[in-house]
Amino acid sequence: MEIAWIGTGIMGAPMARRLLRAGHGVRVYNRSAEKARALADDGAVVAADAAEAARGADVVFIMVSDTPDVEGVAARIEPVLARGQLVIDMSTIAPAAERAIAARLAKLGTDYLDAPVSGGETGAIEGTLAIMAGGSEAAFARARPLFDLLGKRVTHMGPVGAGQTTKLANQIAVAVTLEAAAEALLFAREGGLDPAKVIEAIGAGAAGSWQLNNLGPKIVAGDFRPGFFVQLMRKDLRLVAEAAQTQRLALPGLALMTSMFNAASALGHDRDGTQAVADALDSVAVLK
Amino acid sequence: MEIAWIGTGIMGAPMARRLLRAGHGVRVYNRSAEKARALADDGAVVAADAAEAARGADVVFIMVSDTPDVEGVAARIEPVLARGQLVIDMSTIAPAAERAIAARLAKLGTDYLDAPVSGGETGAIEGTLAIMAGGSEAAFARARPLFDLLGKRVTHMGPVGAGQTTKLANQIAVAVTLEAAAEALLFAREGGLDPAKVIEAIGAGAAGSWQLNNLGPKIVAGDFRPGFFVQLMRKDLRLVAEAAQTQRLALPGLALMTSMFNAASALGHDRDGTQAVADALDSVAVLK
Repeated sequence: MEIAWIGTGIMGAPMARRLLRAGHGVRVYNRSAEKARALADDGAVVAADAAEAARGADVVFIMVSDTPDVEGVAARIEPVLARGQLVIDMSTIAPAAERAIAARLAKLGTDYLDAPVSGGETGAIEGTLAIMAGGSEAAFARARPLFDLLGKRVTHMGPVGAGQTTKLANQIAVAVTLEAAAEALLFAREGGLDPAKVIEAIGAGAAGSWQLNNLGPKIVAGDFRPGFFVQLMRKDLRLVAEAAQTQRLALPGLALMTSMFNAASALGHDRDGTQAVADALDSVAVLK
Repeated sequence: MEIAWIGTGIMGAPMARRLLRAGHGVRVYNRSAEKARALADDGAVVAADAAEAARGADVVFIMVSDTPDVEGVAARIEPVLARGQLVIDMSTIAPAAERAIAARLAKLGTDYLDAPVSGGETGAIEGTLAIMAGGSEAAFARARPLFDLLGKRVTHMGPVGAGQTTKLANQIAVAVTLEAAAEALLFAREGGLDPAKVIEAIGAGAAGSWQLNNLGPKIVAGDFRPGFFVQLMRKDLRLVAEAAQTQRLALPGLALMTSMFNAASALGHDRDGTQAVADALDSVAVLK
């Protein structure tokens, strides 16, 4: 299949590489050109711009940072898109923006899926991402063999936008559950316990979570090396807040975590892992 | 072994029954006498008061509701306690109160453990409770064979009070993680998704938790039947707040959940399961 891959950053590059290795022809484009050129060794054709990459491709993948970036790419490829092409945005952006882009491309006869992922760089390299897709059944069926090269848990969640809404629900759960772990461990430590032992004692029961069991030990060790950047979580929670604002949803835990991640960012943790929110908690919580 | 069991409520009765069935002699006492009498069929001796139950017993278990209840029992049995006896409080109460009681009993030569549990009525019946114990190594070693009849994951956390501190850390994680699940599912539902499908899509990854995977489906179904009462969670969070006040700890997630469970209680959910907090969230969050 002839594939265009726009956005070859920390996630996009290993994902495009998996498609190349499966034998697909891939034309890549990235705003900082050197990141695209790195894929030439794997057999990718490096395009001069997004439109050149997208022209005539069976499937056009987008994997960039934020809502305006996807809107920008969509605007630049729109002139070359034609009936029968499929555009798949795997970035995490606003659900409403996906619906607007899909509606515009539908007029050209171009199909569209939003398909954000979770699982981080490791998942991208190993092809074990969770993929949450929104769009028509037909578009999803067409994309499925490619998704199976990229991820393990691939779910069709509903119409365009449903992938992003699922991803944002995921991020709400991730962020608030992380706070649960951080506060429990803070309370334990300040109460004179060995917090590592507390994780062992409570991690398999009703208090248990991926966050407590995987990031808890890092919090205890003060190890803030990134699995997922604070900076990116701040962006994702901003997307949640935007959707909640439009829908008039009061999400108090989400509001709290927006503040906590702002505090983590202010403390210089933007490029640290999300578990650095425990440092923000310590800063405000432990009055010594 | 001659055992006294004080407090034969929803948790205490099945726990005492497990000791009886293992061949121990058990004298029981309960404030509402009929609950104690129900254990006579299992071979328990029903005592007229707590002191009568405790006199001469090798081990005295306490399983009552709250800090003043344990303090009351301790005051009533103190006159009959002697050197070499072991008192084990399995209630969930304030860590500081346990330390005060243990210090008083130490003067009599009576040993003391705090050993709160998690796992609910089912865990009590099946002997699969998690037991988090605080006290001396010697006292823990002596209690261990009895704990093994009552629970599966038995951990010695440190000196007296360490069991309660662990239990309260557990409750912080439980309560805040529940909010994570409830907000993610609210966002998903209001975003037009099938929230049951969202649990499937995200429950095995970084967003996953016992709360999401076990109480999430109940939230989706509007099934508020109790696993653990809202009323009891409110008591436990009050204990956390008391300890946090003394230690000057800012725990914003805990503060939020105190409000959320207050709201659930105000909506009449005291005797419903903790997942009814989702109804409180709906009441404040969904402005229709």
